[in-house]
Amino acid sequence: MAVHLFPPQADQLHPIAGVRIGVTQAGIRKADRKDLTVVLIDEGASVGGVFTQNRFCAAPVQVCREHLAAGHGIRAMLINTGNANAGTGQPGLMRARATCVALAKALDVAQEQVLPFSTGVIMEPLPHDRIMAGLPAAIEAAGHATSAQQWVDAAEGIMTTDTVPKAASTQLQVAGVTVSITGISKGAGMIRPNMATMLGFLATDACVAPELMQELSLALAEGSFNRVTVDGDTSTNDSFVVIATHKAAHAPITSLKSPEGQTLLQAMLQVARQLAQAIVRDGEGATKFITIQVEGGRDSAECRQVAYAIAHSPLVKTAFYASDPNLGRILAAVGYAGIADLDQTGIDLYLDDVHVAIQGGRHPSYREEDGQRVMKQTEITVRVVMGRGNASDTVWTCDLSHEYVTINADYRS
Amino acid sequence: MAVHLFPPQADQLHPIAGVRIGVTQAGIRKADRKDLTVVLIDEGASVGGVFTQNRFCAAPVQVCREHLAAGHGIRAMLINTGNANAGTGQPGLMRARATCVALAKALDVAQEQVLPFSTGVIMEPLPHDRIMAGLPAAIEAAGHATSAQQWVDAAEGIMTTDTVPKAASTQLQVAGVTVSITGISKGAGMIRPNMATMLGFLATDACVAPELMQELSLALAEGSFNRVTVDGDTSTNDSFVVIATHKAAHAPITSLKSPEGQTLLQAMLQVARQLAQAIVRDGEGATKFITIQVEGGRDSAECRQVAYAIAHSPLVKTAFYASDPNLGRILAAVGYAGIADLDQTGIDLYLDDVHVAIQGGRHPSYREEDGQRVMKQTEITVRVVMGRGNASDTVWTCDLSHEYVTINADYRS
Repeated sequence: MAVHLFPPQADQLHPIAGVRIGVTQAGIRKADRKDLTVVLIDEGASVGGVFTQNRFCAAPVQVCREHLAAGHGIRAMLINTGNANAGTGQPGLMRARATCVALAKALDVAQEQVLPFSTGVIMEPLPHDRIMAGLPAAIEAAGHATSAQQWVDAAEGIMTTDTVPKAASTQLQVAGVTVSITGISKGAGMIRPNMATMLGFLATDACVAPELMQELSLALAEGSFNRVTVDGDTSTNDSFVVIATHKAAHAPITSLKSPEGQTLLQAMLQVARQLAQAIVRDGEGATKFITIQVEGGRDSAECRQVAYAIAHSPLVKTAFYASDPNLGRILAAVGYAGIADLDQTGIDLYLDDVHVAIQGGRHPSYREEDGQRVMKQTEITVRVVMGRGNASDTVWTCDLSHEYVTINADYRS
Repeated sequence: MAVHLFPPQADQLHPIAGVRIGVTQAGIRKADRKDLTVVLIDEGASVGGVFTQNRFCAAPVQVCREHLAAGHGIRAMLINTGNANAGTGQPGLMRARATCVALAKALDVAQEQVLPFSTGVIMEPLPHDRIMAGLPAAIEAAGHATSAQQWVDAAEGIMTTDTVPKAASTQLQVAGVTVSITGISKGAGMIRPNMATMLGFLATDACVAPELMQELSLALAEGSFNRVTVDGDTSTNDSFVVIATHKAAHAPITSLKSPEGQTLLQAMLQVARQLAQAIVRDGEGATKFITIQVEGGRDSAECRQVAYAIAHSPLVKTAFYASDPNLGRILAAVGYAGIADLDQTGIDLYLDDVHVAIQGGRHPSYREEDGQRVMKQTEITVRVVMGRGNASDTVWTCDLSHEYVTINADYRS
């Protein structure tokens, strides 16, 4: 029941020169399920990544940070579903490393050149033996040529509670040269990315100086994954990795502020945002896609704080589910968002084009049927105008339905 | 489906000399419903109160603050259900004041001696005319003598989505004199009190110096209502009022640190805690009552921060609902609680007596069936030991069920 979200087709995606992907069934948690993906990256690519701020970060997140810091050039990524390898202590770290060693050996690279990713149930031992046993088939599936179909396979291969695979792609001109950008993401629950999302991978054949990759990853995450929430639960495994393979024939981009840097950044941001919004559209039990836009704040941080208070309120989320214009719940959330000196008489509230509240009270011309009309839509924009300044920010979220409870009460069984 | 919560009987409650209560049906939102309560207080009582921190606080909350500050001695309280008079702007304030004026006139006291309270739907105009029309019947119902039955009636009269009325009572000796304490509360949803709860009223016939009442109210709220959450939504109308009628024949208490002050405080705290926990037990859709105890923190604030992160996680709450020992979700919540320097290898997790995680990983001897056994109970204690210090704190909450979604998707219809 994803909201306006459709499975990607190979003819909508651009393959990225320098990236090959293979997917296989390793039987990690359940049989007959694509659960192991390898991404093979040609030598010479620049890679950056941002990871969860959850202090209970998973073993693979810890290993990713080490391996990226080692600076030997990333040559492969290894992604398993079915098990998050989080809350697994020292043994979890050893198992994550063992899978990197095995893939590195098969590819004849150093283990620091492999990035591991896991997603699934927390606090259960990673079946690393099954992952290692599955590697040859995954590498075999990657073959010798890149293709759009591989990205479709990968989008499917990294799904857990997702109901629709998520991929997005675009092309643009950089200094007169055609550059492709393609990405995939996964996630539906435990979604409140904080510097990264559950799993997001974005690749381009553009040439981006390695020293820019961290800045680029951060800028992309900030404008996309860090603006979505499903349930407010920041995952232990959030990882967002950006790969630039340097296969396009333009001069390397050495600053994101240069015209080429800006062009590429904006195009990548558009793709990243599509991937991030896809996670909300496929949010567990989601029936509505909601954009929360907060304007007139002193700075964007306080706008975001208010937007998240609304986005996380179970009362607001259930009202959206019910298409019930019980809009006082939104005002209540604005009020408890934590802005100590907020003056309620300065607040206006809009639902799409409907002016619901003015100066903190119900708008005299607001009619229940107008609110009802908007609430019945599957895509809704909530706009809060605070009248305190000129800053604004936007967060995307979904509603809270019976299906959400069903999914999360049954997830492991 | 409240958790171990039973309606109070008159023979379990002690009447409080100096307090009379009358309840009537004023037809505020629905017909045939007790929706208007007046509490009449003899001259000479000390009264204190704490109110919501929500910046969108309701009109009656604003009026209560003014009237308490005026210091003329509170003589009456006026409580309506069915309408919160919040998000109603300037007209809402005028209507709240008009109801105080009407009650003051009927009782021949000043309007500043009346405290108004409203609870119900937000952002709809208060039908103040119906409230004023109902006042004579409510005053008539209060009669000329206090009784325990009046407290039972009041507990029923202030209910909204509550399924069980909430009252608690005790007696103790202060300086050799018998003192009674009786209180009522209401609330089931939009419950994350911050300095006060939805509505809580606590009365005693003890003699407490007026200048102590604010300190006493705060201390009681901190140890009770400020430690419970249902859905994390801080209400616009939270109000907690403490009344000491000075009818007991002991010397006035002039310090909460004196032996008599401590004795009274502890007894009142016990009653306040029962009332606060009753709100969680009757939490919307609740099927479990969960105590979250966080120990070994640097200060109680960080323990509380971690406890609330667990208590508010929809994933944790749905796991409790499902009796599913998916306990990694608790670790994830600990990790994203916002303690920047938290070391996951220092964390232990217990479910009642079951040692689930040690040093951040699954305990080697932990067996799924032990977790399952505890999760099936209707009362569960989660204990997180952080190994960072000696502070601890406790929060009470409930699970998130299908019924919660049903209630909040249907509340207004």
